[in-house]
Amino acid sequence: MPRVPVITKATVTPVLISDPPLLNVLGVHQPYAPRLIVELHTDDGASGVGETYGDSVYLKAAESLAAAVEGRPVTALNGLRDLAYESAGFTDDAPEFDPAGLRGRRSDEKLVRSVVSAFEVASFDALGKILGLPVHALLGGRIRDRVPYSAYLFYRWAEHPEGYPYEVPSDDWGEAVDPAGVVRQARRFVEEYGFTSFKLKGGVFPAEEEVEAVRALAKAFPDAPQRLDPNGGWSVETSVRVIEDLGDLLEYAEDPTAGLDGMAQVRERTGARLATNMCVTGFDEIPEAFGLDAVQVVLSDHHYWGGLQATRELAAICRTHDVELSMHSNTHLGISLAAMTHVASVVPNLNYACDSHRPWQTEDVITRPHRFTGGALDVPDTPGLGVELDRDALGALHERWLRLGVRDRDDVAAMRVADPGWTQPPLPRW
Amino acid sequence: MPRVPVITKATVTPVLISDPPLLNVLGVHQPYAPRLIVELHTDDGASGVGETYGDSVYLKAAESLAAAVEGRPVTALNGLRDLAYESAGFTDDAPEFDPAGLRGRRSDEKLVRSVVSAFEVASFDALGKILGLPVHALLGGRIRDRVPYSAYLFYRWAEHPEGYPYEVPSDDWGEAVDPAGVVRQARRFVEEYGFTSFKLKGGVFPAEEEVEAVRALAKAFPDAPQRLDPNGGWSVETSVRVIEDLGDLLEYAEDPTAGLDGMAQVRERTGARLATNMCVTGFDEIPEAFGLDAVQVVLSDHHYWGGLQATRELAAICRTHDVELSMHSNTHLGISLAAMTHVASVVPNLNYACDSHRPWQTEDVITRPHRFTGGALDVPDTPGLGVELDRDALGALHERWLRLGVRDRDDVAAMRVADPGWTQPPLPRW
Ligand SMILES: [Mg+2]
Ligand SMILES: [Mg+2]
Repeated sequence: MPRVPVITKATVTPVLISDPPLLNVLGVHQPYAPRLIVELHTDDGASGVGETYGDSVYLKAAESLAAAVEGRPVTALNGLRDLAYESAGFTDDAPEFDPAGLRGRRSDEKLVRSVVSAFEVASFDALGKILGLPVHALLGGRIRDRVPYSAYLFYRWAEHPEGYPYEVPSDDWGEAVDPAGVVRQARRFVEEYGFTSFKLKGGVFPAEEEVEAVRALAKAFPDAPQRLDPNGGWSVETSVRVIEDLGDLLEYAEDPTAGLDGMAQVRERTGARLATNMCVTGFDEIPEAFGLDAVQVVLSDHHYWGGLQATRELAAICRTHDVELSMHSNTHLGISLAAMTHVASVVPNLNYACDSHRPWQTEDVITRPHRFTGGALDVPDTPGLGVELDRDALGALHERWLRLGVRDRDDVAAMRVADPGWTQPPLPRW
Repeated sequence: MPRVPVITKATVTPVLISDPPLLNVLGVHQPYAPRLIVELHTDDGASGVGETYGDSVYLKAAESLAAAVEGRPVTALNGLRDLAYESAGFTDDAPEFDPAGLRGRRSDEKLVRSVVSAFEVASFDALGKILGLPVHALLGGRIRDRVPYSAYLFYRWAEHPEGYPYEVPSDDWGEAVDPAGVVRQARRFVEEYGFTSFKLKGGVFPAEEEVEAVRALAKAFPDAPQRLDPNGGWSVETSVRVIEDLGDLLEYAEDPTAGLDGMAQVRERTGARLATNMCVTGFDEIPEAFGLDAVQVVLSDHHYWGGLQATRELAAICRTHDVELSMHSNTHLGISLAAMTHVASVVPNLNYACDSHRPWQTEDVITRPHRFTGGALDVPDTPGLGVELDRDALGALHERWLRLGVRDRDDVAAMRVADPGWTQPPLPRW
């Protein structure tokens, strides 16, 4: 009987990572975003790392799960979801709620899946290191050797507003609040990272201005696919108008309007390909969405969906229903980026460049942070995720978390620092 | 950079296994059924085994794939389907056809998936042996330690008919052509293997007689769930009548009638839970079937669906759509049974006892054939599938394949040996 490696210790380390003043429909990014780093140690002396959302509710559930996984085989991934439910004290009957945020409806199930994803990735990382196999090989092997990413363009200010009770990070990207600024940002992305497709985070300015920005991008980069994502910020009428204005310039329209009914109406009136990481972020939302033809591209996100195996399952569901697949990202570090790259390399129907906030995060917790070349990342064949934890960096970012007391991401509160009268804009905003 | 094990040699060995005269809607089982054994050798000196359908078309595609996998990493599973297509010379545009057999519509895609399944299982077996991990651990770990199976009852003759140009196998189970015979068979299954649920293969006699057999079983085993599977042999009217007659005695009604439209009508008229391994045996058939509510239980079969990972994906699709999952079996040996047991152990929503023809196959190609106890099998924690190839047995069954010249399963032709006027009964038969 072989000995399967057992988890001897699991740690969850909350960190704060610096983030530029990126604008969206709700407000602006805070100077620091919370994130969780999960580390699993096994009785083989190996360890593995995972990363997920860092807000208080995730931290609490992750700490409960960390205690619960100790003593379990590192290969015991299929039971993690139930274990997380149980250890968090969740029951199956908690209601869903809709905070009208950027992630769609919330539920315990979604929270649990986001937490489990970090433990699953850390388990694959540890197992891969023990076995000498890259994570993709544990997922049936890569079918591509490079994963293309899209340049994630944001309207942004040059600096965070005055008024934070702590020092805020700064960068040299300058402001981008009009078509010229967006094109300037895109040029630098192309020069530095070689991106060949663009996604502009919209919902910030009246739709007509954002249409002009996409037009300017298309003029400057005539061969590059374009995406525009107002996070559900437009009415159905505005969505239809934007899509008709932009015609075939858009590769897909991402969450033009909030909610399945509105998305279905936009689809019916325009025939455009609509993508989402808001109205379909859990398996239970799929049947209605697909039934209504409200969504033609699901933005996978291994954190949302519960890990790398779950992302494969989502991909199979999309294939079966002739719905396309792309990949969403949120503010993240290199551990998540490595996991995204591995899973993207094994999913045959991931035919779009993936999203990544990466270029905006200049800090990391790994020793050799990723750098896009030709707008893509190589899929590593080294054991596990192919990253190494930088303990000094992790310690420093955790110390910041302890020191600053920022616990949750809140783009509305961040905007209020600049504009004291700001409240959460009801959707549709435009 | 670690060295990933590479396949150095792949062999496909067709065998003939003895089979009793089991009756179904088309006719009767032949004395010998073809089956393929796939063996992969790696440059680590390890080997792995897989098993699948053995008819000529499978053999041909498997031999092509065997030549194509040599030199590839044993972990490269995600590319097997495309490789099988290519090596078989299939194009994507071959038409589906419906031979009105027991497997539903046929297509190159389904053929390829059945062939790939054996190579995927053999790869997992080899990889598990190399790594010291059971196959279930390579699939995220078992969530149950025993897999329950259902007693697979058949109407049958005591002996194969006279008239075969070779010696035919024989056993001591005797005939079962009426309720008393079926109950007698069930009793012996319970005594020898401890089964606690029953599936009767129907479609053989007028539906009323089969209803009586199920009633007799329910009387003899009042706590045991019952299933009845006429392989699409009933009209919609007959299906409704049987289901209304049997009321809650049936755990589910398996393929009462052929085709999605008929299934949907039966569902609408009875509200009964309908299972299938005929009208949904490929991913492309799912959207229409689920949309019509024609199927409430999909019978997974890792051969049909393309392997163990694909079975997980099917399970996720079913979970998402609130469709249940059970498991189908065809005449098989111990390699397939081991693979069925491993995959059943990792799928959370496999809540029914699995089907297995096993007790009817007394021959095997592994050194320690499985034996059901308490109607279940333990999930092995030994490396790989947990089985060892018996080369002498394999050689003998292959020699039989060479000698007898039986190449394809044909239940209609087998019935013609007993009844020279027999032709394929058009469905519905009853
Ligand atoms: Mg989005
Ligand atoms: Mg059946």
